[in-house]
Amino acid sequence: MLGTREPDVYGHETLKDVEDMCKTCASDLGLDIDFRQSNHEGNLVDWIQEAKESFDAIVINPAAYTHTSVAILDALQAVGKPVIEVHLSNIHKREAFRHTSYVSKMATGVICGLGPQGYILALQAISRLLSSR
Amino acid sequence: MLGTREPDVYGHETLKDVEDMCKTCASDLGLDIDFRQSNHEGNLVDWIQEAKESFDAIVINPAAYTHTSVAILDALQAVGKPVIEVHLSNIHKREAFRHTSYVSKMATGVICGLGPQGYILALQAISRLLSSR
Amino acid sequence: MLGTREPDVYGHETLKDVEDMCKTCASDLGLDIDFRQSNHEGNLVDWIQEAKESFDAIVINPAAYTHTSVAILDALQAVGKPVIEVHLSNIHKREAFRHTSYVSKMATGVICGLGPQGYILALQAISRLLSSR
Amino acid sequence: MLGTREPDVYGHETLKDVEDMCKTCASDLGLDIDFRQSNHEGNLVDWIQEAKESFDAIVINPAAYTHTSVAILDALQAVGKPVIEVHLSNIHKREAFRHTSYVSKMATGVICGLGPQGYILALQAISRLLSSR
Amino acid sequence: MLGTREPDVYGHETLKDVEDMCKTCASDLGLDIDFRQSNHEGNLVDWIQEAKESFDAIVINPAAYTHTSVAILDALQAVGKPVIEVHLSNIHKREAFRHTSYVSKMATGVICGLGPQGYILALQAISRLLSSR
Amino acid sequence: MLGTREPDVYGHETLKDVEDMCKTCASDLGLDIDFRQSNHEGNLVDWIQEAKESFDAIVINPAAYTHTSVAILDALQAVGKPVIEVHLSNIHKREAFRHTSYVSKMATGVICGLGPQGYILALQAISRLLSSR
Amino acid sequence: MLGTREPDVYGHETLKDVEDMCKTCASDLGLDIDFRQSNHEGNLVDWIQEAKESFDAIVINPAAYTHTSVAILDALQAVGKPVIEVHLSNIHKREAFRHTSYVSKMATGVICGLGPQGYILALQAISRLLSSR
Amino acid sequence: MLGTREPDVYGHETLKDVEDMCKTCASDLGLDIDFRQSNHEGNLVDWIQEAKESFDAIVINPAAYTHTSVAILDALQAVGKPVIEVHLSNIHKREAFRHTSYVSKMATGVICGLGPQGYILALQAISRLLSSR
Amino acid sequence: MLGTREPDVYGHETLKDVEDMCKTCASDLGLDIDFRQSNHEGNLVDWIQEAKESFDAIVINPAAYTHTSVAILDALQAVGKPVIEVHLSNIHKREAFRHTSYVSKMATGVICGLGPQGYILALQAISRLLSSR
Amino acid sequence: MLGTREPDVYGHETLKDVEDMCKTCASDLGLDIDFRQSNHEGNLVDWIQEAKESFDAIVINPAAYTHTSVAILDALQAVGKPVIEVHLSNIHKREAFRHTSYVSKMATGVICGLGPQGYILALQAISRLLSSR
Amino acid sequence: MLGTREPDVYGHETLKDVEDMCKTCASDLGLDIDFRQSNHEGNLVDWIQEAKESFDAIVINPAAYTHTSVAILDALQAVGKPVIEVHLSNIHKREAFRHTSYVSKMATGVICGLGPQGYILALQAISRLLSSR
Amino acid sequence: MLGTREPDVYGHETLKDVEDMCKTCASDLGLDIDFRQSNHEGNLVDWIQEAKESFDAIVINPAAYTHTSVAILDALQAVGKPVIEVHLSNIHKREAFRHTSYVSKMATGVICGLGPQGYILALQAISRLLSSR
Repeated sequence: MLGTREPDVYGHETLKDVEDMCKTCASDLGLDIDFRQSNHEGNLVDWIQEAKESFDAIVINPAAYTHTSVAILDALQAVGKPVIEVHLSNIHKREAFRHTSYVSKMATGVICGLGPQGYILALQAISRLLSSR
Repeated sequence: MLGTREPDVYGHETLKDVEDMCKTCASDLGLDIDFRQSNHEGNLVDWIQEAKESFDAIVINPAAYTHTSVAILDALQAVGKPVIEVHLSNIHKREAFRHTSYVSKMATGVICGLGPQGYILALQAISRLLSSR
Repeated sequence: MLGTREPDVYGHETLKDVEDMCKTCASDLGLDIDFRQSNHEGNLVDWIQEAKESFDAIVINPAAYTHTSVAILDALQAVGKPVIEVHLSNIHKREAFRHTSYVSKMATGVICGLGPQGYILALQAISRLLSSR
Repeated sequence: MLGTREPDVYGHETLKDVEDMCKTCASDLGLDIDFRQSNHEGNLVDWIQEAKESFDAIVINPAAYTHTSVAILDALQAVGKPVIEVHLSNIHKREAFRHTSYVSKMATGVICGLGPQGYILALQAISRLLSSR
Repeated sequence: MLGTREPDVYGHETLKDVEDMCKTCASDLGLDIDFRQSNHEGNLVDWIQEAKESFDAIVINPAAYTHTSVAILDALQAVGKPVIEVHLSNIHKREAFRHTSYVSKMATGVICGLGPQGYILALQAISRLLSSR
Repeated sequence: MLGTREPDVYGHETLKDVEDMCKTCASDLGLDIDFRQSNHEGNLVDWIQEAKESFDAIVINPAAYTHTSVAILDALQAVGKPVIEVHLSNIHKREAFRHTSYVSKMATGVICGLGPQGYILALQAISRLLSSR
Repeated sequence: MLGTREPDVYGHETLKDVEDMCKTCASDLGLDIDFRQSNHEGNLVDWIQEAKESFDAIVINPAAYTHTSVAILDALQAVGKPVIEVHLSNIHKREAFRHTSYVSKMATGVICGLGPQGYILALQAISRLLSSR
Repeated sequence: MLGTREPDVYGHETLKDVEDMCKTCASDLGLDIDFRQSNHEGNLVDWIQEAKESFDAIVINPAAYTHTSVAILDALQAVGKPVIEVHLSNIHKREAFRHTSYVSKMATGVICGLGPQGYILALQAISRLLSSR
Repeated sequence: MLGTREPDVYGHETLKDVEDMCKTCASDLGLDIDFRQSNHEGNLVDWIQEAKESFDAIVINPAAYTHTSVAILDALQAVGKPVIEVHLSNIHKREAFRHTSYVSKMATGVICGLGPQGYILALQAISRLLSSR
Repeated sequence: MLGTREPDVYGHETLKDVEDMCKTCASDLGLDIDFRQSNHEGNLVDWIQEAKESFDAIVINPAAYTHTSVAILDALQAVGKPVIEVHLSNIHKREAFRHTSYVSKMATGVICGLGPQGYILALQAISRLLSSR
Repeated sequence: MLGTREPDVYGHETLKDVEDMCKTCASDLGLDIDFRQSNHEGNLVDWIQEAKESFDAIVINPAAYTHTSVAILDALQAVGKPVIEVHLSNIHKREAFRHTSYVSKMATGVICGLGPQGYILALQAISRLLSSR
Repeated sequence: MLGTREPDVYGHETLKDVEDMCKTCASDLGLDIDFRQSNHEGNLVDWIQEAKESFDAIVINPAAYTHTSVAILDALQAVGKPVIEVHLSNIHKREAFRHTSYVSKMATGVICGLGPQGYILALQAISRLLSSR
């Protein structure tokens, strides 16, 4: 499950490109993925809760909600699956209020600053985490 | 170049293992790597400065110096090459003084919490960064 | 009106149990209750605004939104009815960011750390508050 | 586009009045406006993103989300149009947590404390900003 | 055991009233209570330590000592019995220095803002906590 | 009364232009204005005190004194007339020490980021405030 | 009522001297005073509460408790009589933790840095406050 | 030398009254006083420097400059005479930014909250300080 | 003089054991000791003041009052004898509010984390301090 | 242009000495200088603005205004000439509020702690800065 | 292992004296010690890591590195042996930046302010800790 | 003795140039200098300690260690010779963590923002300091 994307960086077509790139990579790794995007914090919480039943791991880019959403943190903690947090940009080089992430408080791993390739690296990490169990 | 490692996690043999794993991966990616470890901040600064002439990119795990070394930050900024910062653990789940990284203020990307695989992912990211130039 | 619940503590059936327990208690106290749950801050705000016309008091467990939602605070202030804030756990024993509640800035009373019984105590408090007017 | 309003100040009819007042003023200035209100942060983000294609400028009263929504800030930055932030009350005379606005970090201008007339002044400012390009 | 009371709210007779109300309630719940009041932090600490031998639970309103007494916190932790903290007013609506409670760091539950009824609710909570063991 | 202006933005002639623009606008609105500028905090305080007798409202751009002058705040509070605070730039997009305004703690309204048009909007607001009394 | 004194400045005899000096002054002003000293915060609180019935005003030097006692603040607020806070030394020239006084949050007036004469000035102020009612 | 007064409390005549009251008191104490008032920080600094040659002590009410003027602090330190700081109101009961006084860092004594009588008490303190040298 | 002990660590008998251990050690060192314990801050202050006349040095474990008692700090400063502060646990490994000690601001030496042996080491230090005078 | 001097360090004659020393040095370096001193922030601002037309560089010792004057900062920024900030003492060894300088935020260089020689070094630096353009 | 010493307190000979004193004491306690000093943080880290194999406990005076070295903290945690931290002076009586010690976050015990005797007391504590295992 | 230089500003040759420039200047002033550079904090500490015997003063550019090294501060304090701190850039115009210098807490003087000329000015200041003893 991919989280909300930064609309100021990518248009609609590009979101589609990232989705295709992730699906190809997942398929190569033998993973089944569900790719979703929403601007609504509540939708992200609902989807995370659904993942409890239907998914083994979560890759999430919480975008702006990274810095403000305790609800996403609580949902991820309740689900109890491996979580990789991805940010397209290096958030530590941006404004101070972007240096803190609620999701990082519980994520298994964090990857930032590597653009869309971050999602690919996250899928590889998920693949290894699941196979090493 | 790999930075200082966390001695409480890995013994001497394991450091060798990580080095071997990195060398194999680098070789697969067609990269030439130099793998180094030191407990001395000054050595890390010297090595980073040497990289200006001899390397195209730096992968660094600054361990404890992450949180205290402006000297490493300044050296990396002076070198002006792509830098991937790696941490074996998710530093954001540890004590508050480990949540701030001087290196993150200039790193291209940051990967944390994924154990030794973080180095492999970093090498892949470096490979892509260098090939996309 | 009951607010969002902590999904990591109770499954769907248990939410039903709490609802039943509250309805029985309300019935004993001669109160009419409407029991609702949502992960969407906007829904909570909408429901609170509706309460202006249709309810005499509000019992709310704002869960994660406790610590981040000025919108819920503003909605409760606009409604101007007695409000009892309930938390299943004692939020003051958890992480520092859970020690501050926007809702507490206007709530009539706060009950935390007493599990689902907190809702029963809140209904008793509401009953007394309404009868003493 | 007008943002969320403070429900404790105005009832439904009054919101209609403000809308009419704004439409009359816009018409006088030769502007075409779309007037919207929502309690859902996600809706506000969606609408701001839509404005990229369909509007030349945004007048927004983010109400409670002023102080908590990085998502609205990011959406406004992505749209890249002139933005006037309006607050009915002077937020600097209220509680300390209302003194900081994420939207002000990117707004062209800010008008607060002048009640509904603030929207009229914002439309005049928009009119001048658009004509001076 | 009831802690120090707010002398500006209740005269001597009223303290007697609260005591009677609590005793009646305790009797209804089959609980045996000892009701005490002191302005001396040291007395409160002594009494809490005595409770280790003679009581199964503690209901405490630490009044002004809530915000300043590490000694009461340490005594309560040493006793290791269930503790319900009660405040007559909602301390979160008062001055900032009243928003922090040392007792809340270890209390089982906290009830505030509900006046003398808070003691009754606390006794009910104690009754349930003891019966569920 | 217009306050100190930012000398790095406008030369002497432009200050004259703003004065003319304001006078024309005031005349259209049927207002009588006195337009003054000084680099001396004490002069600004003296002028504000004089306004108690001779003016119905104050439009002030306190420039650098915005962030440091309690004396101007106290003078404005003593005068007790409507005050509109104007800033040519959006001070919230500048250095952190410019985000706090002593004048905003008592101003009726604040307008910033709209350049010299801010004065015109302020005069319109004053006109409405005075006519609605 | 005079509060706790600083034992490092005056021995037992001197305390007696100050008491005599105060009694003489009080007698000159036609005031009846009760002069007390204790190292026990609880005693100070008890005495302040007693003052509700028996005294028209309180002169207090809370010494070290100035900076730590919410209990004394609450007792003084409950009593509701004029209070003059006296410190022998100028506390603002000492360590930072001595710059804050809970008592000052409710005192009518504060006199510090003038040694034992501070008590005399306080009695004069009390005399005037009582006569002007 | 008396400093700047709070113009929102006293009109011109009252300032005259305070001056007369002070002069009478000074005369009774055998002191020669010079009574001055200015809204200009620079004037206050000039006057304090003049006091080095012509006065034995300074009574100052720095009003708003209390909280912002390092220049007045430096001037008073350079003069090296006894200084009594007077505030008509109890500044510790007002806004937080009024709780800090630069002048208190060097004043011999501070008297606040006792209205114009504060000046009389200050003159008495000065009289005693000078006579005890 | 030994201060208040942590009742959650040692029962009554053990306090006796520590006392015996200290007395034996003191006797070996040729020191005369008085061993006291109280939960009352005021008692500790009284005892410290008594020490001015009757003791050459103080060993104190202020337990919870370590972090909150300016009164104990002031009493120790007034006495002006060597002071060794002892804590059974290493307070720097506990909650943040236990990292600050008022007593450490004036103590000759501090020993923490070494359990009851800390008292023995403190007596040895006292013995040496007194013999080296 | 030399700014306000610290009157507690130098008398009137010494100010004359420094002026003479500076004039001799300037003459040696072929520079034309205007030496001024004022206790009025507004005068300093006026003089800085005049420098726009008549001077190539500014040497300023803002004394107490260093730490409080945004107006001087803004004036210097508007003038856009090289600025050397001089302090006679090392401000970093003094009280914490003297460690921050608004002028340093825009100064070309800063020299402190070297007494009157600081002005000579500043003139040398100015001479070099102007000759290297 | 003794850490870096404060060179401003002791010359070379004295360091030798302390070493001799420690060796004599260790010999009396039947302990084998290795006494080392370095100004290089890296050396201290190397030596601590060596201790894992060759020593049962560490006595360390990290001098200036106490307050800045996360690397020493990490090395000590990795070694997992008892650690006694010694400071010659009472660091809590010095500048604020010396009040925090990274080493204290993991040390078994801390002894400060007792001069070179601190090392002797530390060796006694080590002796007891090792014998009680 | 010159400290570590900023390698991102000057290559090896330039360091040589600065050294030559300094040596020429020193020779003109009749000073004997030793010019050193190291990336190792420990080396800097060693060299400073050596200076105790062999040098009369120290000119140091601690580069990145300015902001993090208590060890250099302690070494300089132990040596007790005049110290001039030099920075090529104006550190107060850079990131906030560069605004604090441990060395400034004890330096005689500080010169920043004047490039390599700063070293020349420092040598002149040293020359004067030594000749005025």
